[in-house]
Amino acid sequence: MNPTPASTQTFRAIDVIRKKRDGVELSRDEIESLVNGYTRDDIPDYQISAWLMAVVLRGMTRAETAALTDAMLRSGEVLDLSSLPSKKVDKHSTGGVGDKTSLVLAPLAAAAGVAVPMISGRGLGHTGGTLDKLEAIPGFNVNLPVSEFRRVLETCGCAMIGQTAEIAPADRKLYAMRDVTGTVESPYLICASIMSKKLAEGIDALVLDVKTGSGAFMKSEKDAIFLAELMVETGERMGKQAVALITDMDQPLGNMIGNALEVVEVVDVLRGEGPADLRLLCIELAGWMLYMGGVSDTVAGGKKQSEKLIASGKALDKFRQMVELQGGDPRTIDDPIKLPQANSTVTIASPRNGYLASMQCEEIGTACVILGGGRERKEDSVDPTVGIVLHKKVGDVVSRGEALATIHYNAEARAASARQLLEKSYQIQDSPPLDKRPLIHRVIGKAGDKN
Amino acid sequence: MNPTPASTQTFRAIDVIRKKRDGVELSRDEIESLVNGYTRDDIPDYQISAWLMAVVLRGMTRAETAALTDAMLRSGEVLDLSSLPSKKVDKHSTGGVGDKTSLVLAPLAAAAGVAVPMISGRGLGHTGGTLDKLEAIPGFNVNLPVSEFRRVLETCGCAMIGQTAEIAPADRKLYAMRDVTGTVESPYLICASIMSKKLAEGIDALVLDVKTGSGAFMKSEKDAIFLAELMVETGERMGKQAVALITDMDQPLGNMIGNALEVVEVVDVLRGEGPADLRLLCIELAGWMLYMGGVSDTVAGGKKQSEKLIASGKALDKFRQMVELQGGDPRTIDDPIKLPQANSTVTIASPRNGYLASMQCEEIGTACVILGGGRERKEDSVDPTVGIVLHKKVGDVVSRGEALATIHYNAEARAASARQLLEKSYQIQDSPPLDKRPLIHRVIGKAGDKN
Repeated sequence: MNPTPASTQTFRAIDVIRKKRDGVELSRDEIESLVNGYTRDDIPDYQISAWLMAVVLRGMTRAETAALTDAMLRSGEVLDLSSLPSKKVDKHSTGGVGDKTSLVLAPLAAAAGVAVPMISGRGLGHTGGTLDKLEAIPGFNVNLPVSEFRRVLETCGCAMIGQTAEIAPADRKLYAMRDVTGTVESPYLICASIMSKKLAEGIDALVLDVKTGSGAFMKSEKDAIFLAELMVETGERMGKQAVALITDMDQPLGNMIGNALEVVEVVDVLRGEGPADLRLLCIELAGWMLYMGGVSDTVAGGKKQSEKLIASGKALDKFRQMVELQGGDPRTIDDPIKLPQANSTVTIASPRNGYLASMQCEEIGTACVILGGGRERKEDSVDPTVGIVLHKKVGDVVSRGEALATIHYNAEARAASARQLLEKSYQIQDSPPLDKRPLIHRVIGKAGDKN
Repeated sequence: MNPTPASTQTFRAIDVIRKKRDGVELSRDEIESLVNGYTRDDIPDYQISAWLMAVVLRGMTRAETAALTDAMLRSGEVLDLSSLPSKKVDKHSTGGVGDKTSLVLAPLAAAAGVAVPMISGRGLGHTGGTLDKLEAIPGFNVNLPVSEFRRVLETCGCAMIGQTAEIAPADRKLYAMRDVTGTVESPYLICASIMSKKLAEGIDALVLDVKTGSGAFMKSEKDAIFLAELMVETGERMGKQAVALITDMDQPLGNMIGNALEVVEVVDVLRGEGPADLRLLCIELAGWMLYMGGVSDTVAGGKKQSEKLIASGKALDKFRQMVELQGGDPRTIDDPIKLPQANSTVTIASPRNGYLASMQCEEIGTACVILGGGRERKEDSVDPTVGIVLHKKVGDVVSRGEALATIHYNAEARAASARQLLEKSYQIQDSPPLDKRPLIHRVIGKAGDKN
């Protein structure tokens, strides 16, 4: 009879939308009811999209962000890896161009005795994806059921698969909605999406690599630091150790971009070779994984140990073992020339003498997508063979006519488009660039206070 | 081949959502494509709701508001009343408690020679609706087809109906979505909704009555002024004369609340009787309608003329004529006791001696809804007979035991709930209230500059 809605008794999505719209903090119960209601299809898309836009524009408190992460995490299965004696540590990157560190780090940390249960994603926009890189190895299966994932992990200490239907289904539904409603770009929603999936892996600690620069999703360092702090605090609120490194993505990482080409560079690094920037970042991140995994007392100690495991060949052995356990052809690891290769190559030459001042990193990533190395539409398949090999990095001296990069391609028209984009992405000047950006900008998180 | 979306060629709703999210002004074309796409079902609900929330939180420029109004207006039929020689003028109120001025104004302005093609709404929330009041007159048909609406208008100079399916279908779809996504409360969206429907009537000028106070949707005067300015400017941008009066809704207008009771009070005013506040506001608004309708040179002249039309009985004759033309029983106008009446009444007595300091106006409206005079759910039917008659208004002296109000009801339980709410809504104090609010707070719009 009384027209006042009984909102204290019954959860109504509209009330939660209005509260967020008006900048009022939501309770843990309200966020949980919203996420569960949406996952169960009780709340329609049009209500969740209005709420998502309100979150993008109003933001969230740390408590709300943790509650959202927790509700998304608990929308599905959370792996219980407590039977494994080692500490479980994962690494997550916010995505970049030429970022193949996961393929180095999983076997490297496993070789040191840390368990690495890594659930990864595919390429997004101009950035590459770990799963696409792994699938460049003939036979490698990223779609293991959870039981098989667990078996590989128990056998060799690391395993790398894609997201399963059981892990954080709320995130899959919410992400699909964000993608079509302009609500991707919110640090709170990005944090909850990443952290809910990672914490569902049943890990003890997480090392985050938050990229910043022209090839990153967070172009500005300020935004990268904000997201990093949010993810670290969210992890800690959920009882997990977390640290974030803000690292440079103003030019590609390493020299190889493209799925099979990046596997070649991974093997180079695991052999103690490969480009200096990629080696340095892998050792730094591995140092943190070993420290947080409890197999070394300091990050510095973890880095030393990682270098030894590379020098001894144990890290490469671990990679070969994982590849074989997941159905991949181990001969490609010993002899990377056996990896699939593109039919043709073409070289981009420097138009003048000078110094390489900068590279538009997102455009280089996009050039690789144009070649077929990434997806323009979700349903596209990826060509593992194509890509770009960089011969010069920022700060290098270049001579007129000297090769800046080599394009590996299978279709002339795609190569022409990619070439045009690549040529535009280089800036060459007379004097050396003044402010060289560091590879590691800073470390965020209490875990790093003593190191 | 190139992954850059061809957004310059193809309209994509996501681009418009992102722009609004980022606070970038939308073009007329973008707004039109969005409204048309949604009306045609090409754009899904979840995208429009994200956009609506972005509008609520980012606002709109005046140009965007006019473009949205125009696109919504042109989503359906726009009446062409150019064959009528008189100027067409309508009045719209943002809604209040006891606001029955439309029923007085349409025949009053028509009696002066202004054409009034009035398309009205039903009660919303705690407020009454013109259609519900008209339907309290036995036989009155508010659902005339457009051809019949035109015939009544041509015959007697005024006609009053509900929204047809042909008028602004985009507004109907958008309003339904706003209602369930917490996006009703935006002055820009409210303005576009009101103005698109009103301008679809084919009018030359519009008098807006924007309510402020405890019984209005815009509780604060600041919000009421903002909305009024927005509506007036939007009307002017679309080539129509518009003026807005900010008027008081801190207590009910007149003494009667409830559909049939309000018709009784309308007849009182048209007979030159009725409560002072209601008479005053009707004359003021009629003055503006006559002035903007070109039948008087000033608002003051229009007010005088209106008073004469009431004194001569011509305004009441016009009301009787319209009621008869729309199927209503004209005997109820001459003898309002023939209007439907509730079975029982109960009186609320003052608990003490003193002055009536204030009334919680929204609660009084809600009490009438509880009695059955409004809808708690959209599908509810309305009881025309129930309501509340006020015996005291703010500032009046009251004695202990004296009647403050009489409840007209048909169900004991409803009467008990309404009584409880009503009793709580009165504040009685020892001294007279100091700051008596004016009935007309101010006039907004260039049309009023000279008056």
